[in-house]
Amino acid sequence: MTDPLRIAVAGLGTVGAGTIELLHKHADSLTLKAGRPIVVTAVSARDKSKDRGVDLSGARWFDDAAVMAGEAEADVVVELIGGEDGPAKAVCDAAIGAGRDIVTANKALLAIHGTELARSAESRELNIGYEAAVAGGIPIVKAIREGLAGNSISKIYGILNGTCNYILTEMRQTGRAFDDVLAEAQKLGYAEAEPSVDVDGFDAAHKLALLASLAYGAEVDFGGVYIEGIRAISPVDIEFAETLGYRIKLLGSARLTGQGLEQRVHPCMIDKDSAIAHVEGVFNAVVASGDFVGDTMFEGRGAGAGPTASAVVADLVDLAAGRRTPVFGLPAPQLQPLARAPMEAHVGAYYIRLTVADRPGVIAGVTAAFKDQQVSIESMLQRGRSETEAVPVVITVHETSETSIRRALESIGAMDGTVEPPHMIRIEPL
Amino acid sequence: MTDPLRIAVAGLGTVGAGTIELLHKHADSLTLKAGRPIVVTAVSARDKSKDRGVDLSGARWFDDAAVMAGEAEADVVVELIGGEDGPAKAVCDAAIGAGRDIVTANKALLAIHGTELARSAESRELNIGYEAAVAGGIPIVKAIREGLAGNSISKIYGILNGTCNYILTEMRQTGRAFDDVLAEAQKLGYAEAEPSVDVDGFDAAHKLALLASLAYGAEVDFGGVYIEGIRAISPVDIEFAETLGYRIKLLGSARLTGQGLEQRVHPCMIDKDSAIAHVEGVFNAVVASGDFVGDTMFEGRGAGAGPTASAVVADLVDLAAGRRTPVFGLPAPQLQPLARAPMEAHVGAYYIRLTVADRPGVIAGVTAAFKDQQVSIESMLQRGRSETEAVPVVITVHETSETSIRRALESIGAMDGTVEPPHMIRIEPL
Repeated sequence: MTDPLRIAVAGLGTVGAGTIELLHKHADSLTLKAGRPIVVTAVSARDKSKDRGVDLSGARWFDDAAVMAGEAEADVVVELIGGEDGPAKAVCDAAIGAGRDIVTANKALLAIHGTELARSAESRELNIGYEAAVAGGIPIVKAIREGLAGNSISKIYGILNGTCNYILTEMRQTGRAFDDVLAEAQKLGYAEAEPSVDVDGFDAAHKLALLASLAYGAEVDFGGVYIEGIRAISPVDIEFAETLGYRIKLLGSARLTGQGLEQRVHPCMIDKDSAIAHVEGVFNAVVASGDFVGDTMFEGRGAGAGPTASAVVADLVDLAAGRRTPVFGLPAPQLQPLARAPMEAHVGAYYIRLTVADRPGVIAGVTAAFKDQQVSIESMLQRGRSETEAVPVVITVHETSETSIRRALESIGAMDGTVEPPHMIRIEPL
Repeated sequence: MTDPLRIAVAGLGTVGAGTIELLHKHADSLTLKAGRPIVVTAVSARDKSKDRGVDLSGARWFDDAAVMAGEAEADVVVELIGGEDGPAKAVCDAAIGAGRDIVTANKALLAIHGTELARSAESRELNIGYEAAVAGGIPIVKAIREGLAGNSISKIYGILNGTCNYILTEMRQTGRAFDDVLAEAQKLGYAEAEPSVDVDGFDAAHKLALLASLAYGAEVDFGGVYIEGIRAISPVDIEFAETLGYRIKLLGSARLTGQGLEQRVHPCMIDKDSAIAHVEGVFNAVVASGDFVGDTMFEGRGAGAGPTASAVVADLVDLAAGRRTPVFGLPAPQLQPLARAPMEAHVGAYYIRLTVADRPGVIAGVTAAFKDQQVSIESMLQRGRSETEAVPVVITVHETSETSIRRALESIGAMDGTVEPPHMIRIEPL
C-alpha cells in the first residue's frame, strides 16, 4: 500500500478549500502517518472560474459532482456539498455504486439516510467517514466508536451547535435579546442568513441522532428526536437562571429508558458549576458516560473550515492507512431499530416562567393548577411589582412527568390573569 | 478474520482483573465491534491461588510472565505488571521476539524504552497499544495520533496525575496541608504507600514524554522532562492563588521552541476561569492545540481499574479489527531526536512566596535583588503583620527568564531577613 490514496472532492466551499489546503500544507507528515500520499485527483463545484485560494492543478474538473463520484479516478469521494437529499445524496449513491469509500461532513444526509447508506456501503466493503459531521474538529466519532468501544454507554449528551451556544453565551454576557444577538451573529458569520436549521435545533438533532446510533448500536432515527430550539429564551430566563444557580444551554441528549431510546434537543438549565456549563461561544462539547470508563468529556470548535478540514483529513488518513470501522460501530445489519421513548414519558424538574397580572388570586390559581396535576412546587420568584403591568413569575417544580407539566401549563395558559403563554425550560441533572 | 484474537494477560492486579471482567461482560458487543471474539488464552501473576473475582478457566496459567509472552498461544500479550524495567520489559521483549503484538498500561516502561520498543516491534510489523498508559480512560493517544493527524500541534498540556490533582483539590477545598491530605489519600486508595512517583511528578512526566512524542513526531525523551512535584505547595500558596485569580494545578506541558522541545512538569498558577482549572479531584484532562482544529480538550478519569480496562480493551478491539497505527504516529525510524530546550531558557511570569522578618529594610533588599536581575515586579501582597514572627510575602513578577528569577531568588535566599528559602510557582498563560 504505497500507491497514493486518490480522492475526489465534491464541493469547494470553505470546508472543501480548507481540506485541500490542509492536504497540501501537511503533505509530508500525512504521507508518513498514512504510509502513502493522499492526492486530490478530481474536484467538482458550481463555479469553475472562482478563485478559492488553493491550487487545483492536477485535479480533473467535473461540472457534475455525481458524475465525478462515479467516473473520477479516485479511491475516496469527499462529499462537502451538504443537504439531506439532492446532489449530496446522488454523490454518495454514485460513489458507492462505483465502489469508492466516502468521507462526508454532511450530518443532515446521514441523520436521514445513515442506516441505509451504511448498509449499502458495508455490503460492498466500503466505508463512510463522517468525523466532520459531528462536533466539528472534536474527534468524537472515533472516541465513541473506537476509544470507548469497551463500554456500555449509559448517557451521552452535548453542546452540538456552535451558533446556538454563541448566541446563548452572548445573551448571558451582555443581557441582550435573542433577535439582537442573532443579527450580530449573522453579521459575524456565526449564523446563516436562514438561521432556522441552527436556532430551531435541527442541526443539533442531526448530530444527536448520529451519536445515539454510535452509542447504543441503534439504527439512526432522526425522526425520533424531540426538538426545541432557543428562540423562546429571553434575557429574563437567563437572569433567573443565574439567580437559581444555572446556565442555559441547548443540549442534545440520548439515553436508553425502559420505554426505548430517548433522544432530546432542547434548552436546558444546568448546574453552573458543571464542566459543560463552562463551554462557551462557538465551542462544542460532548459528555459520554460508560460503565467502565465513567464520565468523559470532549471539547473543541464545532464548526469552521479549519476544524472541519481537520476531521475530514483524519478520516482520509484512516482510509489511506487501511484502518476501517463499521460506520456506526456495529456492522449495519446488526444495528437495532429501537423503540422511541415518548417525550410525554420524560420525567424531570422544570423551570416555568409565567407572565401574569399582579393581582390577588392569580397566584392561587397557578398553584392550584399545579396541584391538580400533582406537580410539587420547589420555589417561586417574582421580579418587581406593578399594579398596571404584567410581571414575570418564575416557578421551579420538583421531578414530574412531561405530561403533567404540559397539562398544568395548559390550564395556566387559559387562565384569566395569564398575559402571555407560559414558558418552560427543563432542568437537567448532569 | 473471524478466528478469535487470543490474548495473554501478564499481571492480574485490579487492572488485569478489570480487563478480564470487561472482556467477559461485553463479549457479545465486542465480538460485533471487532468482527471476531477476543479470548483470554493465558494468564500470569505472582500468586496462582488468589481469588480475583474473575473466571480464569480456559486460560493457561504461567508462573513466569516472560515465558508466557514467548510461549502462550496468543496473538497479543497484555502487559499489566508495571515498572520501567524488570519483568515488564522482559515480557515485552519476549512478546516481540515471538511475533506478538503488545498492549500495555505501562507509562514508565514506554517513557524509558518507548522508541527502542517501537522500532523493534515495527520492524517485525508488530504493534504496541498503550492507550491505558496516558490519562487512563481518556482515549487521548487515539485522539492525538489519529483524530488530530491532520494538524501541526502547537502546544499540548494537561493534568496527567490524578493523585496530585486530588490532593491539590482537597487542599483548596478544605484548607488543609499537603501531608495531611496525602495521608488521607493513601487511606482512600488514591495515593500509594510510597507516593513519590506520583507527588514528585515522575508519573506525570512519563505520560508527558509519550504525549510529546505523539504530538511532535519526536523520539520519546523522558530524560528531557524538567520535573517538580507538589510537596512544596502550602495552604498559603493556595490562598494567595485564589486572591490573585488563579488555581494551582500540576501540569505537564510540551512545546517546540527555537531551542528545541520543551517538556515540563511542575505546579502552575492558571487562570481560575480556564476550562482546565475546573478539572478537579482524580480527573485528568489534556488540551491540544492544532493549526487547523484550534483548541481541543479531553477529560476523564485518569486511573482506576475500570477506566484503565476501558483503554486496554479499546486497543485490543483495534488489533482484533486489524486497525494498526505506528506506535508514536510516525513510523519509528522517522521519529526525530529533538534537541532539549533548556529549562533555564524558559520565559514566563512567576509567583514568589517569601518568608521574611517583618522589619525595615528587608523588602527594600528583596526589590533590589529583583532589580539587579532586571525582573519587573507586578504585585506584592503581605498577609498579616508581626514584630516577632516571620510573615509570608507574595510577589508576582512580569515575564522574565528562568535564569533571572533563579538568580534573584538565590540572592534573596542568602539575605539576612529571609527566614525560609523562597518558594516559586510558575504562572502559566493558557
